[in-house]
Amino acid sequence: MSTTQSYIQENKQRFLDELFDILRIASISADPAYKQEVLDCADAVAKHLKAAGADNVEICETKGNPIVFGEKLIGENLPTVLVYGHYDVQPADPLELWTSDPFEPVVKKTDLHPDGAIFARGSADDKGQFFMHVKAFEAMMKTNSLPCNVKFIIEGEEEVGSASLADFLEENKEKLSCDVILISDTHIYSNEQPTVTTGLRGLSYVEVEVEGPNRDLHSGLYGGAVPNPINVLSKMIGELIDEKGHITIDGFYDNVVVVSDEDRKEMNKLKDDPEAYKKSIGLNDIQGEEGYTTLERASIRPTLDANGIWGGYTGEGAKTVIPSKAFAKISMRLVPNQTPEEITEKFTKCFEKIAPKSVKVKVTPHHGGMPYVLESNTKEFLAAKKAMEKAFGKEVLPYRSGGSIPITSLFEKVLGAKSVLMGFGLDTDAIHSPNEHYGLYNYYKGIESIPYFFEFYAQGN
Amino acid sequence: MSTTQSYIQENKQRFLDELFDILRIASISADPAYKQEVLDCADAVAKHLKAAGADNVEICETKGNPIVFGEKLIGENLPTVLVYGHYDVQPADPLELWTSDPFEPVVKKTDLHPDGAIFARGSADDKGQFFMHVKAFEAMMKTNSLPCNVKFIIEGEEEVGSASLADFLEENKEKLSCDVILISDTHIYSNEQPTVTTGLRGLSYVEVEVEGPNRDLHSGLYGGAVPNPINVLSKMIGELIDEKGHITIDGFYDNVVVVSDEDRKEMNKLKDDPEAYKKSIGLNDIQGEEGYTTLERASIRPTLDANGIWGGYTGEGAKTVIPSKAFAKISMRLVPNQTPEEITEKFTKCFEKIAPKSVKVKVTPHHGGMPYVLESNTKEFLAAKKAMEKAFGKEVLPYRSGGSIPITSLFEKVLGAKSVLMGFGLDTDAIHSPNEHYGLYNYYKGIESIPYFFEFYAQGN
Repeated sequence: MSTTQSYIQENKQRFLDELFDILRIASISADPAYKQEVLDCADAVAKHLKAAGADNVEICETKGNPIVFGEKLIGENLPTVLVYGHYDVQPADPLELWTSDPFEPVVKKTDLHPDGAIFARGSADDKGQFFMHVKAFEAMMKTNSLPCNVKFIIEGEEEVGSASLADFLEENKEKLSCDVILISDTHIYSNEQPTVTTGLRGLSYVEVEVEGPNRDLHSGLYGGAVPNPINVLSKMIGELIDEKGHITIDGFYDNVVVVSDEDRKEMNKLKDDPEAYKKSIGLNDIQGEEGYTTLERASIRPTLDANGIWGGYTGEGAKTVIPSKAFAKISMRLVPNQTPEEITEKFTKCFEKIAPKSVKVKVTPHHGGMPYVLESNTKEFLAAKKAMEKAFGKEVLPYRSGGSIPITSLFEKVLGAKSVLMGFGLDTDAIHSPNEHYGLYNYYKGIESIPYFFEFYAQGN
Repeated sequence: MSTTQSYIQENKQRFLDELFDILRIASISADPAYKQEVLDCADAVAKHLKAAGADNVEICETKGNPIVFGEKLIGENLPTVLVYGHYDVQPADPLELWTSDPFEPVVKKTDLHPDGAIFARGSADDKGQFFMHVKAFEAMMKTNSLPCNVKFIIEGEEEVGSASLADFLEENKEKLSCDVILISDTHIYSNEQPTVTTGLRGLSYVEVEVEGPNRDLHSGLYGGAVPNPINVLSKMIGELIDEKGHITIDGFYDNVVVVSDEDRKEMNKLKDDPEAYKKSIGLNDIQGEEGYTTLERASIRPTLDANGIWGGYTGEGAKTVIPSKAFAKISMRLVPNQTPEEITEKFTKCFEKIAPKSVKVKVTPHHGGMPYVLESNTKEFLAAKKAMEKAFGKEVLPYRSGGSIPITSLFEKVLGAKSVLMGFGLDTDAIHSPNEHYGLYNYYKGIESIPYFFEFYAQGN
């Protein structure tokens, strides 16, 4: 075992204790009531970076939450790795569904985590994952084995759309110049089958409103003779996906890159176990686009999901009202080469077209993001694959994920570098849900893999 | 002018002032916070009945809110009219949409009420309408012209389902025995074309739940591969009505009595003005079952309306969640001879049948009510028609209304008497909505019509 890996083994308990301190800070970016906690968390991150050996550590002000920067430059001819992560977390509600305090981490065993998992908001997304990089960096620094230059940017607005990041990148192009961006904010296929994420879906997110009558009406006196906006909106949402699971929006698939049979075969080497999948989320049956496996439906195919719907009377008991308006939030996951602008426009046209003449509709775009692909023959991918194979002692496969990290496209555009998505969570870790957790095994495998990545990446250049 | 009508003219201002006192009491039955106001209102009604000349006035305790009783029996051989009304009102929210305090009545002019209308919660539904009977009774008593026996029951739970009324009727069959029930809790077609309501729709009201995954999921990681309960529920609601406006539930129309062409022709003598109708509720276009006029769609045809829908993220901004569950409240208006039990059962079967295998659905019935028809060749109808023709100086037509007053069936079952629905509101009076109002013209025409009804009804027997 190298001295770096020995250092990691000797400091395991402290690495966990320090993560717990970070997890105790309720740095919820979506809720202004937690502004102080967000600032406290940025402070804590800066403190840890400094302690690990980073230079020029800075809490950079933005229009929103601060971005923590730090770096260690050891040689002009060596490649530079920019580590990205985020210290903000999702809100914890509904609190009553948590089995322990979301901001008081505890280790509990689960079927998939027999060695125990850390239960806390942010444990997997993303505190537990960016902190692996801080600890791996510490290990390389303390054992004099850092083989590349390294820079860190850990932001505080990822869960609310990373609004300040673009400006920050533009304004600090020189300071952030790098050869590759390394991100741990994704998951592997399973602990038995580790993977490197080679693709992410993009996102188009809209809010829709359907207005029927200009005031709430009594459903007895008017029912049957007027358009009911809830019925209309429901029917319209229903029409957006056909019986075969295809999205019916005109031109929706025009720019979708068809994945080759060969690539699909490679991808499906990952064992798709429908029974285990159904069991893990309590489903009677799976459902999705005809002709694709569950794995494919959740990664290489675009989707349309209503994320929220509301209208009319939603309290106890019965009220016989026809509401004036009904609303929904609808998001579409995109694949190469769809763009959020294109899809938001096509959605809007479609929604206006299928609305009956009797109602008014309004479509308001929220944030979007580009899909992203890292080809599996690149040196970036290969460094990650080899690093994880060494740490896990198993073959590592490429894996297309269904989630979105819109900043990967932004990094490529502004900094001209590819992102390597070397995440270590599991998709069952309940991120964004009650009882989020992150396996101890995964946390430590991550810390072990990172120095290997630096090593292989330095060799490849 | 008879002395009764003169008395009414001479006391117009006082009749209005007294109504205002009743309207100032916020007797909201749906909200327990207004329990005292409900009791205060029952007291006020009893006081007015006594002052008008009623005997045996009583505030009858029930399991819920009290029912106010009073009577005047003047001859064993004379027919007995039972007046029914309700002193409870709907909640006033959303308060911010009222242009004046809902419990501080004011008179304001409107396009349809050039003489002014009383703006207050309960002005049309039903305080302004039951109080016409108290004042008409007073006029007949003070001028010694009461031609029938009269009994009053004014209840306090109509807006929450009249739960205590059935027991009260059963326990007081003898005391409430009567020849006809007279109710003013409906509307006329217009002030230019007065009508007597000859039909009401019944009601079946259910709450539905669609469960997909057993917990909220991240729409990136799972989107496309799992059933989204909002999308599924929307599609299911959409499927319940076809392109022609027909309800697709198996057997839904089996027991619908087809209204004859002749009756439809008579009914459509009421001028259907689509432009005025659309304008009054701000619609671009009307919508409904193919082959029927707006008037018919809102009266002689059954309907299906979602009255509420909710699920997923409904706050500010964007959250990429696939919720575990989505919900809706759905009501169906029924026509003779549909029954709420039959339709609730058919709805439940249909909803379970059209659900994809991948989700679980649950249907919970709320309250229901039977449809009601009063034939236009009956003495009850004819007395009302003649009375209103005398007061309005215009031909009065029969009118089928789309609303539901489930107690009409209950009265017929327990007391063996038909109900005459001689209401005086307009369908634009915004009952159950902000800015409820009741025309002064309508209030006084009602008070004038009622003594005529007593007169014609006594003659007809």
